[in-house]
Amino acid sequence: MKPTLADATRGRILFGGDYNPEQWPEETWHEDVRLMKAAGVNSVTLGVFSWAKLEPVPGAREFAWLDRLMDLMHGNGIGVVLATPTASPPPWLGRLHPDTLPVDQDGRTEWWGGRQHFSHSSTTYRRHAAAITEDLAARYANHPALTMWHINNEYCTYDWSNQAAARFRTWLQRRYGTLDALNTAWGTAFWSQGYGDWAEVHTPRHAHYLRNPAQVLDFKRFTSDMLLECYLAERDIVRRHTPHPPVTTNFMPLWAGQDAWRWAEEEDVVSVDLYPDPRDPLGAQHAALVQDMTRSQARGPWMLMEQAAGPVNWRGVNHPKPRGLNRLWSLQAVARGADAVCYFQWRQSRQGAEKFHSGMVSHAGEQGRTYQEIQRIGAELAGIGPEVAGTHTANDLAILHDWHSWWAGAHEGRLSTEVDHPQVLTAWHRALWESHLTADFAHPEHGLTAYKLVVVPQLYALTDSAIDNLLAYVHQGGTLVSGFLTGVADEDDRVRPGGMDARLRELFGIRTLHEWWPLEERERVECEGFRGTLWSEEIERVADGAETVAAYKGGELDGLPAVLRSGRAWYVSTLPEPSDLRELLSRIAAQAGVRPVLDGLPPQVEAVRRGEALFLLNHAREPVTVPVPGTHRDLLTGATVADEITLGRYGAAVLKP
Amino acid sequence: MKPTLADATRGRILFGGDYNPEQWPEETWHEDVRLMKAAGVNSVTLGVFSWAKLEPVPGAREFAWLDRLMDLMHGNGIGVVLATPTASPPPWLGRLHPDTLPVDQDGRTEWWGGRQHFSHSSTTYRRHAAAITEDLAARYANHPALTMWHINNEYCTYDWSNQAAARFRTWLQRRYGTLDALNTAWGTAFWSQGYGDWAEVHTPRHAHYLRNPAQVLDFKRFTSDMLLECYLAERDIVRRHTPHPPVTTNFMPLWAGQDAWRWAEEEDVVSVDLYPDPRDPLGAQHAALVQDMTRSQARGPWMLMEQAAGPVNWRGVNHPKPRGLNRLWSLQAVARGADAVCYFQWRQSRQGAEKFHSGMVSHAGEQGRTYQEIQRIGAELAGIGPEVAGTHTANDLAILHDWHSWWAGAHEGRLSTEVDHPQVLTAWHRALWESHLTADFAHPEHGLTAYKLVVVPQLYALTDSAIDNLLAYVHQGGTLVSGFLTGVADEDDRVRPGGMDARLRELFGIRTLHEWWPLEERERVECEGFRGTLWSEEIERVADGAETVAAYKGGELDGLPAVLRSGRAWYVSTLPEPSDLRELLSRIAAQAGVRPVLDGLPPQVEAVRRGEALFLLNHAREPVTVPVPGTHRDLLTGATVADEITLGRYGAAVLKP
Amino acid sequence: MKPTLADATRGRILFGGDYNPEQWPEETWHEDVRLMKAAGVNSVTLGVFSWAKLEPVPGAREFAWLDRLMDLMHGNGIGVVLATPTASPPPWLGRLHPDTLPVDQDGRTEWWGGRQHFSHSSTTYRRHAAAITEDLAARYANHPALTMWHINNEYCTYDWSNQAAARFRTWLQRRYGTLDALNTAWGTAFWSQGYGDWAEVHTPRHAHYLRNPAQVLDFKRFTSDMLLECYLAERDIVRRHTPHPPVTTNFMPLWAGQDAWRWAEEEDVVSVDLYPDPRDPLGAQHAALVQDMTRSQARGPWMLMEQAAGPVNWRGVNHPKPRGLNRLWSLQAVARGADAVCYFQWRQSRQGAEKFHSGMVSHAGEQGRTYQEIQRIGAELAGIGPEVAGTHTANDLAILHDWHSWWAGAHEGRLSTEVDHPQVLTAWHRALWESHLTADFAHPEHGLTAYKLVVVPQLYALTDSAIDNLLAYVHQGGTLVSGFLTGVADEDDRVRPGGMDARLRELFGIRTLHEWWPLEERERVECEGFRGTLWSEEIERVADGAETVAAYKGGELDGLPAVLRSGRAWYVSTLPEPSDLRELLSRIAAQAGVRPVLDGLPPQVEAVRRGEALFLLNHAREPVTVPVPGTHRDLLTGATVADEITLGRYGAAVLKP
Repeated sequence: MKPTLADATRGRILFGGDYNPEQWPEETWHEDVRLMKAAGVNSVTLGVFSWAKLEPVPGAREFAWLDRLMDLMHGNGIGVVLATPTASPPPWLGRLHPDTLPVDQDGRTEWWGGRQHFSHSSTTYRRHAAAITEDLAARYANHPALTMWHINNEYCTYDWSNQAAARFRTWLQRRYGTLDALNTAWGTAFWSQGYGDWAEVHTPRHAHYLRNPAQVLDFKRFTSDMLLECYLAERDIVRRHTPHPPVTTNFMPLWAGQDAWRWAEEEDVVSVDLYPDPRDPLGAQHAALVQDMTRSQARGPWMLMEQAAGPVNWRGVNHPKPRGLNRLWSLQAVARGADAVCYFQWRQSRQGAEKFHSGMVSHAGEQGRTYQEIQRIGAELAGIGPEVAGTHTANDLAILHDWHSWWAGAHEGRLSTEVDHPQVLTAWHRALWESHLTADFAHPEHGLTAYKLVVVPQLYALTDSAIDNLLAYVHQGGTLVSGFLTGVADEDDRVRPGGMDARLRELFGIRTLHEWWPLEERERVECEGFRGTLWSEEIERVADGAETVAAYKGGELDGLPAVLRSGRAWYVSTLPEPSDLRELLSRIAAQAGVRPVLDGLPPQVEAVRRGEALFLLNHAREPVTVPVPGTHRDLLTGATVADEITLGRYGAAVLKP
Repeated sequence: MKPTLADATRGRILFGGDYNPEQWPEETWHEDVRLMKAAGVNSVTLGVFSWAKLEPVPGAREFAWLDRLMDLMHGNGIGVVLATPTASPPPWLGRLHPDTLPVDQDGRTEWWGGRQHFSHSSTTYRRHAAAITEDLAARYANHPALTMWHINNEYCTYDWSNQAAARFRTWLQRRYGTLDALNTAWGTAFWSQGYGDWAEVHTPRHAHYLRNPAQVLDFKRFTSDMLLECYLAERDIVRRHTPHPPVTTNFMPLWAGQDAWRWAEEEDVVSVDLYPDPRDPLGAQHAALVQDMTRSQARGPWMLMEQAAGPVNWRGVNHPKPRGLNRLWSLQAVARGADAVCYFQWRQSRQGAEKFHSGMVSHAGEQGRTYQEIQRIGAELAGIGPEVAGTHTANDLAILHDWHSWWAGAHEGRLSTEVDHPQVLTAWHRALWESHLTADFAHPEHGLTAYKLVVVPQLYALTDSAIDNLLAYVHQGGTLVSGFLTGVADEDDRVRPGGMDARLRELFGIRTLHEWWPLEERERVECEGFRGTLWSEEIERVADGAETVAAYKGGELDGLPAVLRSGRAWYVSTLPEPSDLRELLSRIAAQAGVRPVLDGLPPQVEAVRRGEALFLLNHAREPVTVPVPGTHRDLLTGATVADEITLGRYGAAVLKP
Repeated sequence: MKPTLADATRGRILFGGDYNPEQWPEETWHEDVRLMKAAGVNSVTLGVFSWAKLEPVPGAREFAWLDRLMDLMHGNGIGVVLATPTASPPPWLGRLHPDTLPVDQDGRTEWWGGRQHFSHSSTTYRRHAAAITEDLAARYANHPALTMWHINNEYCTYDWSNQAAARFRTWLQRRYGTLDALNTAWGTAFWSQGYGDWAEVHTPRHAHYLRNPAQVLDFKRFTSDMLLECYLAERDIVRRHTPHPPVTTNFMPLWAGQDAWRWAEEEDVVSVDLYPDPRDPLGAQHAALVQDMTRSQARGPWMLMEQAAGPVNWRGVNHPKPRGLNRLWSLQAVARGADAVCYFQWRQSRQGAEKFHSGMVSHAGEQGRTYQEIQRIGAELAGIGPEVAGTHTANDLAILHDWHSWWAGAHEGRLSTEVDHPQVLTAWHRALWESHLTADFAHPEHGLTAYKLVVVPQLYALTDSAIDNLLAYVHQGGTLVSGFLTGVADEDDRVRPGGMDARLRELFGIRTLHEWWPLEERERVECEGFRGTLWSEEIERVADGAETVAAYKGGELDGLPAVLRSGRAWYVSTLPEPSDLRELLSRIAAQAGVRPVLDGLPPQVEAVRRGEALFLLNHAREPVTVPVPGTHRDLLTGATVADEITLGRYGAAVLKP
């Protein structure tokens, strides 16, 4: 049987973080253990950036220090998520083997001196990565501290080098078989780009003017697949040595470079790194989106591999977390399915590029507010762990998302650079989140029949099967709402005749899509009952069977449908302002029989059900009283809650009947 | 006798566009022909991006598909503007001959995968381009469909490569003869740049600090000349095969890289690509400027080679054309001398980098609004063609423009980066356009005596002959108005003593030009009766003979002349705000005896005379009534117009007495 | 005895500028001499950009033209500051020896065609620079015109090339001895950057993500040191030939690339180039800051090597100097210790990259306002020279500044990119300048006991000795005021435990520094009595012995100390708005016994004492009356001043009792 997160949690919520003891003298390790235990830490991630320490010169193996650490952790009851160190090769690798360094589209080498300076396509890199992984896995396969494998770290490199070009050709040969098929898929008849020899095909480098969009799309697919090959190679090595501990690699949320649906299938545990800006008024919504997506990829409990106890150091201005926010956001992750709440990193570094990125133990040390709050969080998670770990809740509502569609829609020659896929996705998720409607994410080819309502913020490119899937879903009684720029292209980024798939047009009651009318940055378009942003469309409705729910008012589109409905299929041809989209989706959800988590919730309170537990999270600095019909027990305080509960500043409750 | 556009139009207005049938199955070709005929299309441009199709592997020749197309067009009465395919070489050329790829000033190669990835200086590229041109010309020399030759496409590449450097040296040797002369012209005594060997001279690549401005100026001249050499080589080949069909290459309007005055001399037909932003309130004025300039370069009728039926795809936000605008702007082109109204492209692409650039047949197809409007335009142009094609009208007013002066003035070490030559030129043209004064453009060394008024928005660098020309013009009775930064430098970009040519200073009554006072972006300077923008000057007027028409008020320049006049010579040392410049130029024009096209025109109506026809164009969405003394016939409707006519939203009339 | 500026001034103020006669025919040289004499010019700088003229082909020596110039100057009583021409090598050097060209971090070569295209690390460059310096020094060692040596010009190049990498390794070996020490200092345990071989160590080139901050810091140190090696090599050559004339190289003020404290030790004369923006309302304060810093580096009189008589040409919009401003700012330089007031350049160039950079003789020539004002300045400086040249005044107040601390604090991974060291420094200096408090600058390891008050705008990194020094200063009775982000890191940019040095925390009364709270660009934080900008801090004060002078109000930091005081040590954890910081520092200064230059000064008047002279400078266009108790003589006019004096627009007075 496939290992799962439960094999590592064993009924607890994992609490801990990345631990980089290489930076510290051994006496600090013992101090660390003392503080970890005082904070309820039960899991640390070791080895993420240890390659140069393990293999200081080519072929060397220095495991003794790691042996001592593994033993130390085990001796203190702390499990180890052991990382392959392949995200950051030692300097000698780049020096001896320049082909291991990535090259960007402008021809610039990415040198060592930072991190992730590896070419995913380099055979040399892969060979060295496999060798160190092999020896690491062999050495610690039976170590009792080992609870999970962490492969590489935040896979996120592109490469336009010659070695990447060679692999790209192979990848394309596998995808297309013949050059004719490639020429057809890429539409190379335009601009005289017909390829007559595989050797002519290149990574899409700096060009005089717009590059071929299908080539760029395939390069993104290729990148995701090359990184996946790197992951699979290491995963298979550790699995060979240790069939039991689950394997993960940590995603960066909504990162453009990886098809996370595809990757999640190859992971035992889906994990993610999540860093909302503490100053962002919608930081909690961003977190909820990422958590919903990660849970959906995991199809159950997941792991928050990294968050920050305080500020990060890669924004322009990096804000700390106000008192209580770390706890609130940690509980939010658990509410939305996390069975592990971890941080980058345990102890804040004194040196290196991230010395102003916070740690669970900040520069202020044991007496600092940051560590004090960590202690409280650790204690509370230990308390609620047995009641929530492993539980899951089904939702009635799904949001569709697909990386390939995002990639295709992002081409440089599109109609509006104002349209940014993640922003559109976020706008739709926000409308649901503010309506207290909890949603899963799904891929457009996933089975959808379990959902009463499916929303499509934007799926610019759809395969024929995905369209089949959507049509079948509606025909079987589902309600579908779609935003604009959906079904425009096929999987080769070929615009479908009519500018939108004919079957989808029929579904929504669109006779002719005459023109797209993108809006300027701050432009608004008046519609009946609301104002639209970002986009509008010149649509001619079918003569009957479809209803103009709201028409454009004034301007060139006066009287044409802004929101169109044909039976259970809705089409929204603009992006309503936030409160308008919220109102619209609430209305559609109600008609589809989808209910909010709780009635009468104040706006600043997020409510989430997980198993039998009801999480209530106050995202405001002001206290608030929440009506909760019936009697519950608050797992955090043990108190009995009857009919209502008052949550303090950034307060939370975990109620059970 | 030299071929002309009339050889192709034969009394009609050409209507059609770029046709890229390579992208479509042959059954679509027949559908295309049906739709073309229904829309009155009488001309298509073939082959612009066909090199890879014609020569899929080095040395191959695949003409059969093009034979069929040429026959198909001819069989349906549609003429063909046949393009040499040399703007976009096939991938194999770059792969086998890396010297055919341009290199930018930072050393980055411009790879294939987009378009125009050819080095104008590459002997290899030129050889291959000549070979395919030769065979294309030989094959279709006598084909009855052939009406015109279209060489390459939108020449617009720079190249800093080693092969470009080699040709630059040769070009400089031809220009200067000796290194001493080059050192003198470039002022290399400054910053220790003296060249002792031709091999030391380079293209002006990335440098630590400001590069030599004369070197950069010559590099721009060289670029224009190298591109021209490419054009001439292909032109001469097709002329050798076919003396009759006229030859053109399509300009990008006001593009910085080509001295279009010089180029136009080498074309039988001057053609231009014109893409005003449909959302730009001054889009029509921008179009009028380009049309006036193109007509002046052509010295008669010209060809609108490319416009868009709807949106383009290279702006940040790309807007479609509201209903009626395509027709209005097409008629505007005819009014200002176009005998051909063509589009990029016939059928909107489903694939490739420009699939969101509109076509005459949009994604919405036959029933789409775009094609419906195309049909109307085709019909109307066919109707008025016999009455206007080939006609021309002389103007009393000329605006001077010169690329070399623009190039010299654009150096990175100038006094104000806010001063942008095209913006200054546009501001002056706008003032005239809004005053209903129609203008030609002329080069500063052209004969000017036919004009009552000559305006110089800005000619930073002037040759001695140009100055002779201006002085002679005024001395022979002409009225001259000049904006600031005129006559500052000579043709080597050497500042003339006194900061402005002494004879010009004398002409305008300037004793001493103490200092230039550029203004900040939104800064305004108060003058008597108006406010100035962008620039001001500390000028000491000659004691007598010159008049301060308007003085600066307040500030450091208080009382000094903002507008200075000495007889018929006017000098405007700032850029008055739009309505102020309009008022000033109207006044000067009236004094010089230059009249608006029609009296009493509403502001939103553009009126242009062409031959006997009077075009009236309503650029507003609101209908408007225009007084037109006398009785006319409207060529568009056949109606009789007595004393006034009402134009609807974006409405137009073409009146004949 | 070491030569000094006095050897060149001989009781006068030097007045003149860069003279580039290479650009002009010899007849112009004689015209120049006439105008120089009429303007009181007594010093010109020759040869700065003469390498290509002196050595037009490799190994040639063409001195005859320079001989004639030296003689001409001497014959007319004008001294020559003779420059080594090594800042701008001739084209042949780069062509024959590509290793002499710098390479930037992206791998781009910096080509000739501009200036300063030399690699400081290139052995070839150094050899050629030494050779021409040798011959120049030998030839003019005994020329009577020679008054000073000017080495190179505005040293300011970085280099990431392979030759720079080789020297970087050598430099690091000298600094650290062993790789272990380097690995420790750079914290390479983080991100797996451990070096196992010196050959792996590189210049910090383009990387995938944040580069190692200690490596970047050392690269900046290395750059300063390599440039210094270039300087020293040439200095030692000229000294060998001519022990007497003092040697200088001109600094760019507050330029990030040079540790000017270290460099100043190696100069006989400290000189600087100073170009405040005439439109900047704080231009005079910027100038005062640079002048104070230069005087402090010189420990006495210094040389204003370059200023502009009018506009420069490297800003976006370049403004001329209003009438009188050139004189006012020249006198300001003298007030703050300059014994030489010079310009770039004598005669404005007609060609080359700087032809719109003003000269003492502008394009308008002899009758131009610019030269007219130059004549007045020359006469006045000649008048006051004997009374002020060589004099010096001690100050009670020092501002600490250190390049290494600036470099360390500027790392890309810092908490706020809004925090810009020069801006913080400027804000503090401005507060003092507006309070009429004159300050010296000092290095944190300098002796400070002569000062009553020491202010530390920001010293992010401090060595242990510097901390010793600050503590000793306070313990010996000094008053210390420090801004935020001081003492955070040690000299390897290692964050000190607690986020700030423990001894400093103790000094200021800080128990725990919980978190830094950087502010957004326009964000303000309310404090008792003022508003803070840029930064705030979550500080826990020690229980007793420290006083919260002003607390934060509202928000997360409500009640915590914004300004903290423990005895004579003050800590300001935000940047108060300008008037608030001025008020705060005035108050602290008064308590420390530091007095303004004069009581009752109007805000727009700057007052500076130099020796016995009191300079009064009116920075406004409106006249102003200044109370001056007692009777003085105005050295500029000879008038007697009793109790008060009225200064006109941009007016000045130099009063002596």
